[in-house]
Amino acid sequence: MKEAIREVARKAKESSPVVANLSSAQKNAFLLHLADKLLKEKQSILEANALDLERAKASSMRQSLLDRLALNEKRIADMASGLRDIASLPDPVGEVIDGTRRPNGLLVTRVRVPLGVVAIIYEARPNVTIDSVGLCIKAGNAVILRGSSSALSSNRALVQVVQKALQECSLPEGCVGLIESESHEDVKFLLSLREYIDVAIPRGGADLIRTVVENARVPVIETGIGNCHVYVDETADLDMAEKIVVNAKTQRPSVCNACETLLVHERVAPVFLPRVVAALKAKGVEVRGCEKTRQIVSEVVPACEDDWYAEYLDLIIAVRVVESLDAAINHINKYGSHHSDAIVTSDYSHAMEFTRRVDSAAVFVNASTRFTDGGEFGMGAEIGISTQKLHARGPMGLRELTTWKFVVYGSGQIRE
Amino acid sequence: MKEAIREVARKAKESSPVVANLSSAQKNAFLLHLADKLLKEKQSILEANALDLERAKASSMRQSLLDRLALNEKRIADMASGLRDIASLPDPVGEVIDGTRRPNGLLVTRVRVPLGVVAIIYEARPNVTIDSVGLCIKAGNAVILRGSSSALSSNRALVQVVQKALQECSLPEGCVGLIESESHEDVKFLLSLREYIDVAIPRGGADLIRTVVENARVPVIETGIGNCHVYVDETADLDMAEKIVVNAKTQRPSVCNACETLLVHERVAPVFLPRVVAALKAKGVEVRGCEKTRQIVSEVVPACEDDWYAEYLDLIIAVRVVESLDAAINHINKYGSHHSDAIVTSDYSHAMEFTRRVDSAAVFVNASTRFTDGGEFGMGAEIGISTQKLHARGPMGLRELTTWKFVVYGSGQIRE
Repeated sequence: MKEAIREVARKAKESSPVVANLSSAQKNAFLLHLADKLLKEKQSILEANALDLERAKASSMRQSLLDRLALNEKRIADMASGLRDIASLPDPVGEVIDGTRRPNGLLVTRVRVPLGVVAIIYEARPNVTIDSVGLCIKAGNAVILRGSSSALSSNRALVQVVQKALQECSLPEGCVGLIESESHEDVKFLLSLREYIDVAIPRGGADLIRTVVENARVPVIETGIGNCHVYVDETADLDMAEKIVVNAKTQRPSVCNACETLLVHERVAPVFLPRVVAALKAKGVEVRGCEKTRQIVSEVVPACEDDWYAEYLDLIIAVRVVESLDAAINHINKYGSHHSDAIVTSDYSHAMEFTRRVDSAAVFVNASTRFTDGGEFGMGAEIGISTQKLHARGPMGLRELTTWKFVVYGSGQIRE
Repeated sequence: MKEAIREVARKAKESSPVVANLSSAQKNAFLLHLADKLLKEKQSILEANALDLERAKASSMRQSLLDRLALNEKRIADMASGLRDIASLPDPVGEVIDGTRRPNGLLVTRVRVPLGVVAIIYEARPNVTIDSVGLCIKAGNAVILRGSSSALSSNRALVQVVQKALQECSLPEGCVGLIESESHEDVKFLLSLREYIDVAIPRGGADLIRTVVENARVPVIETGIGNCHVYVDETADLDMAEKIVVNAKTQRPSVCNACETLLVHERVAPVFLPRVVAALKAKGVEVRGCEKTRQIVSEVVPACEDDWYAEYLDLIIAVRVVESLDAAINHINKYGSHHSDAIVTSDYSHAMEFTRRVDSAAVFVNASTRFTDGGEFGMGAEIGISTQKLHARGPMGLRELTTWKFVVYGSGQIRE
């Protein structure tokens, strides 16, 4: 198997200069062709997905995971329209980022170029397969896909469609590779291939990301662990605060930018907590509170230290009463995952201090944490949300799938 | 020792929000004060350096390494003036990189912020200590220094001066930490401290960089391996080509942007090789050539496959005759280290093709590879030259020691 993996990686590297030098028109033509083809081939994709679902049910997979794994006509249509969206985005490759004429006459330019070969390690959602292909190819990269073994049959069918589309568009087939191995040792091997892989991006839960980070010898961009906070300041508009908390917690609780902990200033806690707890409970949310919270709203379950660290991804929220803005910021920087955090306030200096001191990829004033998203930020589609500081932070779109090189034009200059 | 290392890292992390929020004026005042202080304390620094030199001589260190280790009044003055240069550069922190008003009224801004805690792992040059402190603090980062054990006494003395300067400027002392351990296990431990360190930057030779990359659990920026090429095209101005080759090879052979391999198009080889070999030999360069080279200039030593991969850092050059631009590009992409490569040509389309297809941090047309340098590119001082594609590529200045965060200003927006 290792030789097969090395071969997939080698071919990706070999094809990457070809992909890097495709014109925008060629890349967009491929994306649109693939979109059409997915719709035409939906029957074979759904049949392959049915096999995965059967196996998953036989192994008693949880309903929420089954939901992620399942494809249907609507989801295939969504993949196709996702590709069309990517085709409509501007091509990041070739942008002259900046440049300068030096005193010696050298023209130094910094030009945006593809990363090369991107490995995406992900879980059960088969739509990630198509999404990753679309984004990576549009940014001029070859891509190596390693999805969950539970989705292998679906991913094989999808990549088969991709391969045909590549062929029909005269693009090198090696530029999209699927790793079919189900073993963790093989993933580790893949992540050691520094000569072929320029960056690995894990897309999935905390365990997956930890495994990739700990085993990779290639550079990694960490994504998506979200222990996000809403802090309701003493000066908050409480109607706005309630709307934001309920939205951030319940609009889609399973995603990384959902709110997991609510912090409330002690001066507004007696008024705000009863109403926000009632509003959350009406949406089916379990509320776990600190001692002070429970003194105000007695039916709240007690929260323990672990709750402050928790990424529930579920209809559960931890609530803590804090004595000051400073205490709120310290709590967020200590327990949070540096993803997305919000303050609700009407005080200008509190808003400024919060945005300056909270060390997170996205910091919001008077808005829901749910907005941390490539589309919502105006970047178009995203490949994930980086919670590390290197290379990219926050939503990663096409630009974040590129690097640059310096191109320097001279007329015989030498260094004295 | 591990506990001492953890403590240095913990203090750096603890102090990093303070450094991140210093004003430019505070940071510049510290840099200028430190510059003055180095000059005042030069006696104690030179005495400490003398101890290192004594130990090094006793252990029969090579002369070239002794040269790197040795300090003198001039070198201390250079450190001080380096700090003054850094003080004069614009502060990267706080720049609003871009931003947009979304249709729902959200104002999404991307703001430049420090990385946090930067660990610099380096070798015998004690000037790297001061240089790293200056660049990291100016970019708002705390810094952890781990120099070579051969320079420990010098580094201790230098960091002592730094600590006093921090104190006198009311900056947190924890924001500059020195790891005094001489063991490799301890470096490995340092590079595992993901909760405290945001990025590690190795500055040194190939072995050091490999060790850091292979052992780090924290994100790493690789720097500085340079197997650089000059390709002399069939249409080159041969006077210009000779000047560029001799400059790229001999102006400072021990640095990463010096030329290691010369590629010559077969049509100009019979005319160009005799004169360039003569010019190189006149500068004391040993020339190792391919078979075709030796047919033209018989006194050239034969080159073997290893020579194409070699980073000599010395007065040695490998020479290969190639049959086309395409062959030259393929040679560079196969054997090179993706650092700096140059073409000498008078053909427009060849120049364009070379810059597009050569996969290196810096690609030059009609100029010496020696120009790959933060100062020469107009970025001011540099912390190193990245040869990886993630985060930064090529010379890394103050901007490359930062990341960004999204700061989003709303008025009660929730996601539907």
